[in-house]
Amino acid sequence: MSYDPDNIFAKILRDEIPSTRVYEDDDTLAFMDIMPRADGHLLVIPKTPCRNVLDASPEQLATVMATVQKMARAVMAAFDAPGVTIQQFNEAAGGQEVFHLHFHILPRHEDVRLRPPGTMGDMDAIAAQADRIRAATRA
Amino acid sequence: MSYDPDNIFAKILRDEIPSTRVYEDDDTLAFMDIMPRADGHLLVIPKTPCRNVLDASPEQLATVMATVQKMARAVMAAFDAPGVTIQQFNEAAGGQEVFHLHFHILPRHEDVRLRPPGTMGDMDAIAAQADRIRAATRA
Repeated sequence: MSYDPDNIFAKILRDEIPSTRVYEDDDTLAFMDIMPRADGHLLVIPKTPCRNVLDASPEQLATVMATVQKMARAVMAAFDAPGVTIQQFNEAAGGQEVFHLHFHILPRHEDVRLRPPGTMGDMDAIAAQADRIRAATRA
Repeated sequence: MSYDPDNIFAKILRDEIPSTRVYEDDDTLAFMDIMPRADGHLLVIPKTPCRNVLDASPEQLATVMATVQKMARAVMAAFDAPGVTIQQFNEAAGGQEVFHLHFHILPRHEDVRLRPPGTMGDMDAIAAQADRIRAATRA
Protein backbone atom coordinates (compact mmCIF):
# COMPACT_ATOMS: atom_id res chain seq x y z
CA MET A 1 0.00 0.00 0.00
CA SER A 2 1.37 3.41 -0.92
CA TYR A 3 0.97 6.90 0.49
CA ASP A 4 -1.32 9.36 -1.31
CA PRO A 5 0.11 12.88 -0.79
CA ASP A 6 -3.34 14.34 -1.47
CA ASN A 7 -5.11 12.68 1.47
CA ILE A 8 -6.98 15.21 3.61
CA PHE A 9 -4.53 15.11 6.52
CA ALA A 10 -1.66 15.87 4.14
CA LYS A 11 -3.72 18.84 2.94
CA ILE A 12 -4.29 19.91 6.55
CA LEU A 13 -0.53 19.74 7.17
CA ARG A 14 0.03 21.97 4.12
CA ASP A 15 -2.78 24.32 5.26
CA GLU A 16 -4.60 23.70 2.02
CA ILE A 17 -7.75 22.95 3.99
CA PRO A 18 -8.71 24.34 7.38
CA SER A 19 -8.34 22.51 10.67
CA THR A 20 -8.49 23.37 14.35
CA ARG A 21 -4.95 22.82 15.58
CA VAL A 22 -4.43 22.37 19.32
CA TYR A 23 -0.75 21.42 19.56
CA GLU A 24 2.23 20.85 17.33
CA ASP A 25 5.96 20.29 17.54
CA ASP A 26 8.59 19.65 14.90
CA ASP A 27 7.40 16.11 14.24
CA THR A 28 3.70 15.92 15.08
CA LEU A 29 0.38 17.75 14.93
CA ALA A 30 -2.73 17.43 17.10
CA PHE A 31 -6.03 18.80 15.77
CA MET A 32 -9.74 18.42 16.45
CA ASP A 33 -11.79 15.64 14.85
CA ILE A 34 -14.68 17.29 13.01
CA MET A 35 -16.87 14.24 13.65
CA PRO A 36 -16.28 14.02 17.40
CA ARG A 37 -17.40 10.87 19.19
CA ALA A 38 -16.80 12.64 22.53
CA ASP A 39 -16.27 16.26 23.53
CA GLY A 40 -12.57 16.97 23.04
CA HIS A 41 -12.03 14.17 20.49
CA LEU A 42 -8.76 14.93 18.73
CA LEU A 43 -6.32 13.33 16.33
CA VAL A 44 -2.53 13.07 16.53
CA ILE A 45 -0.53 12.63 13.32
CA PRO A 46 3.10 12.71 12.21
CA LYS A 47 4.12 15.62 9.98
CA THR A 48 5.96 13.23 7.69
CA PRO A 49 4.22 10.83 5.30
CA CYS A 50 3.15 7.36 6.34
CA ARG A 51 -0.03 5.48 5.68
CA ASN A 52 -0.64 3.88 9.07
CA VAL A 53 1.08 1.80 11.77
CA LEU A 54 2.05 -0.83 9.23
CA ASP A 55 4.54 1.36 7.36
CA ALA A 56 5.49 3.81 10.14
CA SER A 57 9.16 4.25 11.03
CA PRO A 58 10.36 3.83 14.63
CA GLU A 59 10.93 7.59 14.72
CA GLN A 60 7.38 8.32 13.54
CA LEU A 61 5.92 5.94 16.12
CA ALA A 62 8.06 7.37 18.92
CA THR A 63 7.31 11.02 18.20
CA VAL A 64 3.60 10.39 17.62
CA MET A 65 3.28 8.38 20.85
CA ALA A 66 4.98 11.13 22.82
CA THR A 67 2.34 13.56 21.55
CA VAL A 68 -0.44 11.00 22.10
CA GLN A 69 0.64 10.80 25.74
CA LYS A 70 0.87 14.59 26.06
CA MET A 71 -2.58 15.08 24.56
CA ALA A 72 -4.15 12.25 26.60
CA ARG A 73 -2.99 14.04 29.74
CA ALA A 74 -4.17 17.40 28.36
CA VAL A 75 -7.72 16.27 27.53
CA MET A 76 -8.10 14.67 30.95
CA ALA A 77 -7.18 17.99 32.54
CA ALA A 78 -9.21 20.09 30.10
CA PHE A 79 -12.46 18.13 30.52
CA ASP A 80 -11.98 16.78 34.05
CA ALA A 81 -12.10 13.37 32.39
CA PRO A 82 -11.15 10.33 34.50
CA GLY A 83 -10.20 8.25 31.46
CA VAL A 84 -9.04 8.29 27.84
CA THR A 85 -9.66 5.84 25.03
CA ILE A 86 -7.14 5.61 22.19
CA GLN A 87 -8.08 4.11 18.83
CA GLN A 88 -5.97 3.62 15.75
CA PHE A 89 -7.25 2.09 12.50
CA ASN A 90 -5.23 0.44 9.75
CA GLU A 91 -6.58 0.01 6.22
CA ALA A 92 -10.25 0.20 5.30
CA ALA A 93 -11.14 -3.15 6.86
CA GLY A 94 -9.51 -1.94 10.07
CA GLY A 95 -11.70 1.17 10.12
CA GLN A 96 -9.27 3.63 8.49
CA GLU A 97 -10.86 6.36 6.35
CA VAL A 98 -7.95 8.79 5.86
CA PHE A 99 -4.71 7.15 4.84
CA HIS A 100 -2.22 9.16 6.86
CA LEU A 101 -1.27 7.62 10.23
CA HIS A 102 -3.50 8.98 12.99
CA PHE A 103 -4.41 8.18 16.57
CA HIS A 104 -7.81 9.10 17.99
CA ILE A 105 -7.72 10.56 21.51
CA LEU A 106 -11.11 10.34 23.21
CA PRO A 107 -11.64 11.84 26.68
CA ARG A 108 -14.00 9.61 28.65
CA HIS A 109 -16.31 9.98 31.62
CA GLU A 110 -17.91 7.19 33.64
CA ASP A 111 -21.09 5.84 32.06
CA VAL A 112 -20.86 8.13 29.00
CA ARG A 113 -20.77 6.10 25.81
CA LEU A 114 -18.96 7.24 22.69
CA ARG A 115 -21.29 8.81 20.16
CA PRO A 116 -21.75 6.91 16.88
CA PRO A 117 -19.17 7.78 14.22
CA GLY A 118 -19.83 9.83 11.12
CA THR A 119 -21.80 12.84 12.37
CA MET A 120 -20.38 16.33 11.87
CA GLY A 121 -19.84 18.26 15.09
CA ASP A 122 -20.83 21.83 15.92
CA MET A 123 -17.82 23.91 14.88
CA ASP A 124 -18.36 26.55 17.58
CA ALA A 125 -18.41 23.85 20.25
CA ILE A 126 -15.29 22.25 18.77
CA ALA A 127 -13.51 25.63 18.75
CA ALA A 128 -14.37 26.13 22.44
CA GLN A 129 -13.12 22.64 23.27
CA ALA A 130 -9.90 23.34 21.38
CA ASP A 131 -9.34 26.45 23.53
CA ARG A 132 -9.64 24.32 26.67
CA ILE A 133 -7.20 21.74 25.32
CA ARG A 134 -4.66 24.40 24.29
CA ALA A 135 -4.81 25.90 27.77
CA ALA A 136 -4.32 22.48 29.38
CA THR A 137 -1.43 21.69 27.03
CA ARG A 138 0.37 24.85 28.10
CA ALA A 139 -0.28 24.23 31.81
CA MET B 1 -2.66 6.50 40.15
CA SER B 2 -0.19 3.83 41.19
CA TYR B 3 0.84 0.47 39.79
CA ASP B 4 -0.50 -2.69 41.46
CA PRO B 5 2.16 -5.40 41.08
CA ASP B 6 -0.53 -8.06 41.54
CA ASN B 7 -2.59 -7.15 38.47
CA ILE B 8 -3.24 -10.16 36.25
CA PHE B 9 -0.81 -9.11 33.51
CA ALA B 10 1.97 -8.78 36.08
CA LYS B 11 1.07 -12.32 37.18
CA ILE B 12 1.18 -13.48 33.55
CA LEU B 13 4.64 -11.91 33.19
CA ARG B 14 5.79 -13.84 36.29
CA ASP B 15 4.14 -17.04 35.01
CA GLU B 16 2.00 -17.19 38.12
CA ILE B 17 -1.08 -17.62 35.93
CA PRO B 18 -1.22 -19.22 32.48
CA SER B 19 -1.32 -17.35 29.19
CA THR B 20 -0.90 -18.15 25.52
CA ARG B 21 2.26 -16.32 24.52
CA VAL B 22 2.83 -15.67 20.84
CA TYR B 23 5.91 -13.42 20.84
CA GLU B 24 8.31 -11.82 23.25
CA ASP B 25 11.56 -9.91 23.29
CA ASP B 26 13.59 -8.37 26.09
CA ASP B 27 11.12 -5.53 26.63
CA THR B 28 7.68 -6.71 25.52
CA LEU B 29 5.27 -9.65 25.48
CA ALA B 30 2.41 -10.48 23.10
CA PHE B 31 -0.22 -12.99 24.21
CA MET B 32 -3.75 -13.99 23.28
CA ASP B 33 -6.77 -12.20 24.71
CA ILE B 34 -8.98 -14.83 26.36
CA MET B 35 -12.10 -12.79 25.54
CA PRO B 36 -11.39 -12.32 21.83
CA ARG B 37 -13.46 -9.78 19.94
CA ALA B 38 -12.03 -11.15 16.68
CA ASP B 39 -10.13 -14.31 15.75
CA GLY B 40 -6.47 -13.61 16.51
CA HIS B 41 -7.18 -10.83 19.05
CA LEU B 42 -3.99 -10.37 21.04
CA LEU B 43 -2.47 -8.01 23.57
CA VAL B 44 0.95 -6.35 23.63
CA ILE B 45 2.43 -5.25 26.95
CA PRO B 46 5.74 -3.99 28.31
CA LYS B 47 7.61 -6.33 30.64
CA THR B 48 8.29 -3.46 33.03
CA PRO B 49 5.64 -1.90 35.25
CA CYS B 50 3.42 0.92 34.10
CA ARG B 51 -0.27 1.48 34.51
CA ASN B 52 -1.20 2.81 31.07
CA VAL B 53 -0.19 5.40 28.46
CA LEU B 54 -0.45 8.17 31.03
CA ASP B 55 2.55 7.03 33.09
CA ALA B 56 4.54 5.15 30.44
CA SER B 57 8.14 6.11 29.79
CA PRO B 58 9.36 6.99 26.27
CA GLU B 59 11.27 3.70 26.27
CA GLN B 60 8.18 1.70 27.22
CA LEU B 61 6.11 3.40 24.52
CA ALA B 62 8.82 2.89 21.88
CA THR B 63 9.42 -0.79 22.60
CA VAL B 64 5.71 -1.58 22.91
CA MET B 65 4.89 0.22 19.65
CA ALA B 66 7.63 -1.70 17.83
CA THR B 67 5.99 -4.94 18.96
CA VAL B 68 2.50 -3.59 18.18
CA GLN B 69 3.68 -2.95 14.62
CA LYS B 70 5.30 -6.38 14.36
CA MET B 71 2.18 -8.14 15.64
CA ALA B 72 -0.17 -6.07 13.47
CA ARG B 73 1.77 -7.26 10.43
CA ALA B 74 1.82 -10.83 11.78
CA VAL B 75 -1.93 -11.11 12.36
CA MET B 76 -2.67 -9.72 8.90
CA ALA B 77 -0.46 -12.43 7.42
CA ALA B 78 -1.73 -15.17 9.74
CA PHE B 79 -5.42 -14.54 9.08
CA ASP B 80 -5.26 -13.07 5.57
CA ALA B 81 -6.74 -9.96 7.17
CA PRO B 82 -6.83 -6.76 5.08
CA GLY B 83 -6.94 -4.52 8.15
CA VAL B 84 -6.09 -4.17 11.83
CA THR B 85 -7.76 -2.16 14.58
CA ILE B 86 -5.70 -1.05 17.58
CA GLN B 87 -7.35 -0.05 20.84
CA GLN B 88 -5.78 1.16 24.06
CA PHE B 89 -7.74 2.04 27.19
CA ASN B 90 -6.67 4.31 30.05
CA GLU B 91 -8.32 4.17 33.47
CA ALA B 92 -11.72 2.61 34.16
CA ALA B 93 -13.68 5.41 32.49
CA GLY B 94 -11.51 4.93 29.42
CA GLY B 95 -12.37 1.22 29.27
CA GLN B 96 -9.33 -0.18 31.07
CA GLU B 97 -9.92 -3.34 33.13
CA VAL B 98 -6.36 -4.52 33.84
CA PHE B 99 -4.04 -1.79 35.06
CA HIS B 100 -0.86 -2.72 33.23
CA LEU B 101 -0.31 -0.90 29.92
CA HIS B 102 -1.68 -2.95 27.03
CA PHE B 103 -2.59 -2.51 23.39
CA HIS B 104 -5.31 -4.59 21.76
CA ILE B 105 -4.44 -5.87 18.27
CA LEU B 106 -7.56 -6.91 16.34
CA PRO B 107 -7.26 -8.45 12.87
CA ARG B 108 -10.14 -7.23 10.72
CA HIS B 109 -11.94 -8.38 7.61
CA GLU B 110 -14.32 -6.36 5.43
CA ASP B 111 -17.87 -6.31 6.79
CA VAL B 112 -17.02 -8.38 9.88
CA ARG B 113 -17.90 -6.50 13.05
CA LEU B 114 -16.02 -6.93 16.30
CA ARG B 115 -17.76 -9.30 18.69
CA PRO B 116 -19.10 -7.75 21.91
CA PRO B 117 -16.56 -7.64 24.74
CA GLY B 118 -16.62 -9.83 27.80
CA THR B 119 -17.26 -13.33 26.46
CA MET B 120 -14.68 -16.06 27.11
CA GLY B 121 -13.26 -17.60 23.95
CA ASP B 122 -12.79 -21.28 23.11
CA MET B 123 -9.31 -22.11 24.37
CA ASP B 124 -8.63 -24.73 21.68
CA ALA B 125 -9.50 -22.21 18.98
CA ILE B 126 -7.32 -19.60 20.65
CA ALA B 127 -4.42 -22.06 20.83
CA ALA B 128 -4.78 -22.81 17.11
CA GLN B 129 -4.87 -19.08 16.30
CA ALA B 130 -1.74 -18.57 18.43
CA ASP B 131 0.07 -21.21 16.35
CA ARG B 132 -0.77 -19.32 13.17
CA ILE B 133 0.43 -16.03 14.64
CA ARG B 134 3.69 -17.57 15.89
CA ALA B 135 4.36 -18.97 12.42
CA ALA B 136 3.64 -15.60 10.81
CA THR B 137 5.86 -13.81 13.34
CA ARG B 138 8.78 -16.07 12.42
CA ALA B 139 8.20 -15.66 8.67
